[in-house]
Amino acid sequence: MAFQKPTGTQDLLPGTVEKWQFIEEKARDLCQRFNYREIRTPIFEQTSLFERGVGETTDVVEKEMYTFTDKGDRSMTLRPEGTAGVVRSYVENKLYGEPDVSKLYYIGPMFRYERPQAGRQRQFHQFGVEAFGATDPAIDAEVVALGYQFCRELGLQDVKVEINSVGNAESRAAYRQTLLDFLTPMKDTLCKDCQSRMERNPLRVLDCKVDQDKFVNAPSILDSLDEECTAHFAKVRELLSAMDVDYEINHRLVRGLDYYTHTAFEYKAQGIGAIDTIGGGGRYNGLVSEIGGPDQPGIGMALGLERIALILEKQEIGISGVRPLDIYLVALGSSADTEVTIQLSKLRQAGLSADRDYLGRKIKAQMKSADRMQAKYTAILGDDELERGEIVLKMMETGEQRTVKLSDLVDELKK
Amino acid sequence: MAFQKPTGTQDLLPGTVEKWQFIEEKARDLCQRFNYREIRTPIFEQTSLFERGVGETTDVVEKEMYTFTDKGDRSMTLRPEGTAGVVRSYVENKLYGEPDVSKLYYIGPMFRYERPQAGRQRQFHQFGVEAFGATDPAIDAEVVALGYQFCRELGLQDVKVEINSVGNAESRAAYRQTLLDFLTPMKDTLCKDCQSRMERNPLRVLDCKVDQDKFVNAPSILDSLDEECTAHFAKVRELLSAMDVDYEINHRLVRGLDYYTHTAFEYKAQGIGAIDTIGGGGRYNGLVSEIGGPDQPGIGMALGLERIALILEKQEIGISGVRPLDIYLVALGSSADTEVTIQLSKLRQAGLSADRDYLGRKIKAQMKSADRMQAKYTAILGDDELERGEIVLKMMETGEQRTVKLSDLVDELKK
Repeated sequence: MAFQKPTGTQDLLPGTVEKWQFIEEKARDLCQRFNYREIRTPIFEQTSLFERGVGETTDVVEKEMYTFTDKGDRSMTLRPEGTAGVVRSYVENKLYGEPDVSKLYYIGPMFRYERPQAGRQRQFHQFGVEAFGATDPAIDAEVVALGYQFCRELGLQDVKVEINSVGNAESRAAYRQTLLDFLTPMKDTLCKDCQSRMERNPLRVLDCKVDQDKFVNAPSILDSLDEECTAHFAKVRELLSAMDVDYEINHRLVRGLDYYTHTAFEYKAQGIGAIDTIGGGGRYNGLVSEIGGPDQPGIGMALGLERIALILEKQEIGISGVRPLDIYLVALGSSADTEVTIQLSKLRQAGLSADRDYLGRKIKAQMKSADRMQAKYTAILGDDELERGEIVLKMMETGEQRTVKLSDLVDELKK
Repeated sequence: MAFQKPTGTQDLLPGTVEKWQFIEEKARDLCQRFNYREIRTPIFEQTSLFERGVGETTDVVEKEMYTFTDKGDRSMTLRPEGTAGVVRSYVENKLYGEPDVSKLYYIGPMFRYERPQAGRQRQFHQFGVEAFGATDPAIDAEVVALGYQFCRELGLQDVKVEINSVGNAESRAAYRQTLLDFLTPMKDTLCKDCQSRMERNPLRVLDCKVDQDKFVNAPSILDSLDEECTAHFAKVRELLSAMDVDYEINHRLVRGLDYYTHTAFEYKAQGIGAIDTIGGGGRYNGLVSEIGGPDQPGIGMALGLERIALILEKQEIGISGVRPLDIYLVALGSSADTEVTIQLSKLRQAGLSADRDYLGRKIKAQMKSADRMQAKYTAILGDDELERGEIVLKMMETGEQRTVKLSDLVDELKK
């Protein structure tokens, strides 16, 4: 009986996993520079958290969640996104009591039962940040810029940000009516989903993938913004320009749920032929109180790492899969074998990467192995050398060989 | 409505998460030195994989798994341990076709529905390694030494390895009979579980937590080993001694499942008052074929990171929770605000960690914030300085202040 990984999941093997390590190290390094600190929340949460925090009318909650009943008869769900858990944690751990803005980041797996396709998996991974406690447009601009700089530093080409403002509750109520006035005459020509969305949540109609071309002349939400919302959006754009973030306004970029406010944005990059959306985010001043916390503002962004890894690969942005080994040790004979074990241990304790053969192979096969591991040095130890307390050290690039004392091997390599 | 994290799960918050980052960085660094490469397998797998790979008669599979039916009507289980998924991946991706020993490591969450207690969570985390393809006792010794050195380098006190050999199938069959001869006379005095284990899997009786004192004089499996198994075990011990690994033999350390062979071991460390088991492992020459692969040997170990994090805390092994900030920028006035955004962006792009206020606080509160973030420098920009293209840079440790050109700020700090 042979087993297979579940559909929509991946094995990340040596040679590929190094690309993921590189992406994650970049995220951690960038967050340190932007002064965001990591938060880790559980892989699963109470199902009701996502119904509340992601929204009961969303496709994610309606169709795509991995929900199960645990042995204590509670409904649990594998997290389909990162924000709800972080907000729950922010509230439960009373992080709002801290004097500074809570600037948090996360990297980890998320789960949605979707049709798998290139760059879209059922277990997928996101890097995201959330900043709680500030309404200052400077933090909107910072969050947008962080994701932008991440993509740029990874080397992604043609990275752009599309940005919009969905204003506050009043602006959205006004826009909702304006939009319904525009949509109602064409209602019969829209897809079934959109007809239903018109009743429940008209802003989400603009997200429809089927009917996009019908909305080209849809009214802009920007015309419904009040003075304060307009000023907030203007300041965000001014700061993005000041930081040389390449953005454009997309007034059809809206988010349907009531707790989204002001800034909404998406990241785009040159993908495989087409421009791909690789992530996005927005301000959610109503979400913390929706989750049971105090009335604290928040803003966040998340990027899809499968999509980014795929683009890096297609753009042939080189990330080496093999880290060169410092030294490969070859033992000839069984006394040498024990000494090689001792030397390996010393080398590794001294911070060097070192390996040997475990398959009883001949010296020629061992040297090939050293080549595959891109060893900088090999060292051969036979019974004769062992008796003299010496070892033959060979620099692989030049072929240069010299005999060094066994007791000096670590120091020689540390030079 | 307030939400709580699921019972038996944790939020790792800033201040604590840095300890986990440290532990994981140590694991990655150590694996690089030992030439193990990372593998990442899915968070859930087909349930039957764990029934096969962990063993249907184990407590884990019988009582503790998070099993659910997905939307495609397949039985899936959140991985309760790391080895089964790695073996599945090794087989499915045909890694056995590679010329060198496959030396792999993993770090990640695992899930068991257990009674939560200190250092034992329902979502817990393991660092583990697996090495496939070699029967050489040198790889047994290497795997044991890797986990030992990990604990030592983290600073854990009184780290010890308990080690045993469970031999091969023939040795175990012989021992099974010897053990039954010893247990049968006392059968009625044993706990219910043990009576049932005697029939299904007598070696597991020795694991019983209730009846330990009755087994003090149990026969040793080491007396049932054949010549080859004895020699293998002797060589492992010789190499461990050569590497100064502090180990002792515990002949009651056995593993009941048929695919375990030869070396079995556990890591112990000084915990909270008592000696805690923090991990273990062993050779499993029968597991790869059990999972549907070719007859390839393997050996692995895994360490529980919750347990280790708890011991580090109790032993007061210091890992700083805050990474000092390079610079905190203070803007006085709204023109200065935009310039500070530009400077922040430049500083961060240049690799420095930098932050500012987003709460409209007075300068005194901002300086306190800089202190909390352990900023090495603060820089104050008012409208006057901005007009002259200058900024006042203050070294926080000495209080020394000097005026530098705005255009030189990055270079000044990079010095």
